Amino acid sequence: MKKIIGISFLLVFVLSSMTIAQEKRIPAKGLAVYEAGGGFKPYEFTRHAIGDDDILIETMYASICHSDLHHTHQDWGTEIYPMVPGHEIVGKVVKVGKNVTKFKVGDYAGVGCMVNSCGECDYCKAGLEQYCKKVMMTYHGKDWAHGNEITQGGYSNNIVVKDRFAVLVPKNADMKKVAPLLCAGITTYSPLRQSHIKKGDNVAIAGFGGLGHMAVKYAVALGAKVTVFDITEDKRAEAAKMGAIKYVNVNNESELKGMDDSFDFILSTIPAMYNPSMYLKMTKFKGDFAIVGLPAFNNQPTFKVMDFVFCAGRNVYGSQIGGMKETQEMLDYSVTNNIYPEVEIIKANADTVTQAYKNVLAGKVKFRYVIDMSTLK
Amino acid sequence: MKKIIGISFLLVFVLSSMTIAQEKRIPAKGLAVYEAGGGFKPYEFTRHAIGDDDILIETMYASICHSDLHHTHQDWGTEIYPMVPGHEIVGKVVKVGKNVTKFKVGDYAGVGCMVNSCGECDYCKAGLEQYCKKVMMTYHGKDWAHGNEITQGGYSNNIVVKDRFAVLVPKNADMKKVAPLLCAGITTYSPLRQSHIKKGDNVAIAGFGGLGHMAVKYAVALGAKVTVFDITEDKRAEAAKMGAIKYVNVNNESELKGMDDSFDFILSTIPAMYNPSMYLKMTKFKGDFAIVGLPAFNNQPTFKVMDFVFCAGRNVYGSQIGGMKETQEMLDYSVTNNIYPEVEIIKANADTVTQAYKNVLAGKVKFRYVIDMSTLK
Repeated sequence: MKKIIGISFLLVFVLSSMTIAQEKRIPAKGLAVYEAGGGFKPYEFTRHAIGDDDILIETMYASICHSDLHHTHQDWGTEIYPMVPGHEIVGKVVKVGKNVTKFKVGDYAGVGCMVNSCGECDYCKAGLEQYCKKVMMTYHGKDWAHGNEITQGGYSNNIVVKDRFAVLVPKNADMKKVAPLLCAGITTYSPLRQSHIKKGDNVAIAGFGGLGHMAVKYAVALGAKVTVFDITEDKRAEAAKMGAIKYVNVNNESELKGMDDSFDFILSTIPAMYNPSMYLKMTKFKGDFAIVGLPAFNNQPTFKVMDFVFCAGRNVYGSQIGGMKETQEMLDYSVTNNIYPEVEIIKANADTVTQAYKNVLAGKVKFRYVIDMSTLK
Repeated sequence: MKKIIGISFLLVFVLSSMTIAQEKRIPAKGLAVYEAGGGFKPYEFTRHAIGDDDILIETMYASICHSDLHHTHQDWGTEIYPMVPGHEIVGKVVKVGKNVTKFKVGDYAGVGCMVNSCGECDYCKAGLEQYCKKVMMTYHGKDWAHGNEITQGGYSNNIVVKDRFAVLVPKNADMKKVAPLLCAGITTYSPLRQSHIKKGDNVAIAGFGGLGHMAVKYAVALGAKVTVFDITEDKRAEAAKMGAIKYVNVNNESELKGMDDSFDFILSTIPAMYNPSMYLKMTKFKGDFAIVGLPAFNNQPTFKVMDFVFCAGRNVYGSQIGGMKETQEMLDYSVTNNIYPEVEIIKANADTVTQAYKNVLAGKVKFRYVIDMSTLK
C-alpha cells in the first residue's frame, strides 16, 4: 500500500514536472527540409525551456554555408528530418537564465556550429570545445542535456542556447554581415592564426567561396602575400579587390606552372573533389598545408602515402572551426578591423531559400547568402 | 688554317684527356640484376677515376634494404640494367684524392643512399642534401658529374665517392653491423630526433622490419614508451627485448581497440599496403604522424581528405633519410650508445643474395641481411 502511494506520488510529480517543462518550452517557427535534398517548407516546433545558463535569442540573420547543403543532402551520413539548418546566426538577446552574466537583454549574440559540450574533458578545458567527444551541433545534433531531442538551427525566429556557446557581438558591428563569421570566419581565422603567418609570407587559399574569401581577408590583414586558387574566371577581380596578389584558375594548366615549393602556408577550403597532392607539392619545405574544406563522404579527394614521402617535410593537418574563446577573439578582431564577408541578403521564405541552395550547389553564389530572418512569416 | 690547327690541338687534347681518364677508371666487380625482378649474377664494370675530392673504398659489408627490392623490381619507375644495388655500405678507405682531409687511407667509411648533390642550393647549404634537386643516388642514379653514367651500388668490391658523401666510421664500431645504419638508421633517427620526443612520450613504430627495429631502438634510447605495430606474431619477443612496452599484431582486431588518440608520435616504416588513417586516428591532438615507408607506386595506401578534418590537429609529414651532417651525428650516436641493427650475415655469392631477396619479399627475414663483401669471388 505504501509502495502504491509512493509510486502514485512519483507519478504525479513526474507528470507535473513534464507539464511545467512543456509549458516552459519555447514556440518556434522556421524553414525546414523534410527529406534528403528536398526543398524548404515552413515548420513549427518548440525549443527546450530556458535553463539557468541559457539565453533566448531572437534571430536577426542566419547565413547559408556549403556544409548546410552537405547535411540537407545527407552527404555526411544519415540525417533526421524535418531539419532546420543554420549554424551562422546573429540575433538579439531577449531573455536570460538566472545564472547568466555574460549577456543582458538587448545585447547582440552570435551562435556558430556548436551549442554544448561536456565542459570537463581536456579539450573543453583547453578552450577547444569543438573537439569534445560530446560536442553538440547547433542543428542535426542530439541534445543529450534535453532528452536527446534533435537540435534545430538558425533558419528560425529564435534559438535557446547556453551562454557559453554564444559570443557577444559588439553593438557597432555590421549586423547583416556578422552571421558568416560564426563558421566561415572562425574556420579560416583559427588555422591562419595558429600557423603563425608572418608579414610577407606566401599564403595560398584554395577555394574562393564563403570560407575562402574570409581566409583571403584575414591572410591579407596579417600581412601575407596571398594567392587565390579557384575554378572560375568570375571572381578574379574580387580577389584583387580583397588584396590578393595573384589569382589562379586551376582549370588553366598554364597558370599552375612553376608553383611547386612556393607557399609557406596553404589553406584548402574546397568542399568538392580536387587534387590535394597538387597543393602539397606547392607547399614549401617546413611549410603547412591545412585543410578545412570537407567534400562529400562518397566523393573524397585522396592523398597517396608516396606524396608525403616525395614532398617530405611539409605538414598536413585538418582544422575544425575554433573554440569559443577563439571565436570571441575572431569576432572582436573582425569588427575592430572591419573584416566582413561579402553577403547577399535574401528573404526568409521557403522558395527563396530553396532557390538559394540550388544556386550554392551550382556555384552561382559568389560568397555568402544571408537570410534576413525578420522577414520570416 | 689557324682555325684548323686550333681544332686539331683541341681534338688531341680531348682524346688524350679521355685516354687518361679511361686509364684511371677503377675496375670493379659485383653482383647485379640484369632485368626487372631477376636474380643476381656476377658483373664486372668500372667506376669513374678518383677525383681530387673523392675516396676509394674497399667494400667490407653492404646490406639489403626493402627499397632495393622496389628498385630491382621496378616498383618505383623504369630502371636501367644491369643494376648493382646496395646503399648501405661500410668499408675501408684505400685511396684518397689530393683535396681530401676528412679521411686518410686505413680509415673506415660509410656510404648511404646518395653520393652527390649540387652543393649550392638552399637544401645543400642547410645540410639537407637529400632534398637537393640534383641529388645523385648511390645506385640507379645518373652521374651528371661523370658524363651521365649510371651509378652502381655497394654489392661490389669497391666504390668511389666524394668525401662529403661518406661518413667517418669510428674504429671501435661493430663493422659487420654498421652498414644498415646508413639508410635504416638515419631514416628513422632523423624524424625521431626532429620530432623532439621527450622522455615518457608515447611513441608508436608501425612496421617492425629493417627500419622499424632501428626506430624502436632509437625511440627507447630517447626515453619514449614504445608500442610496435606489425602483422606477424614472430617478432613479439624481439620487440620486448628491444625495450618496447607493447606489441600489437594489426591482424588481431581486438588488439587495436581503445588505441585512438594515444600517441605523441607515430612513425610508419611500412613498405607495403596498409591503412594510414588508422594510425592518424591513433595520433594525439598536436601529435605527429611521420611517414618514411614507401610502398610500390602501383599499390599505394591512401588518406582521404576527410580523415584530416575528422582527426584535426594531427600533423602528417614524410621524411627522407637525413642530411650528411645528421648522418654522421647518427653514426656517432649509435656507436657511442651501442645501438646497432639485428643482422644476419650472408655470403656475397649470386645465389645466396638472390635467395635473400626472395626471403625479404616473403617477410622471412626478421630484420636485416648484411652481405659480407669480402667473400665476393
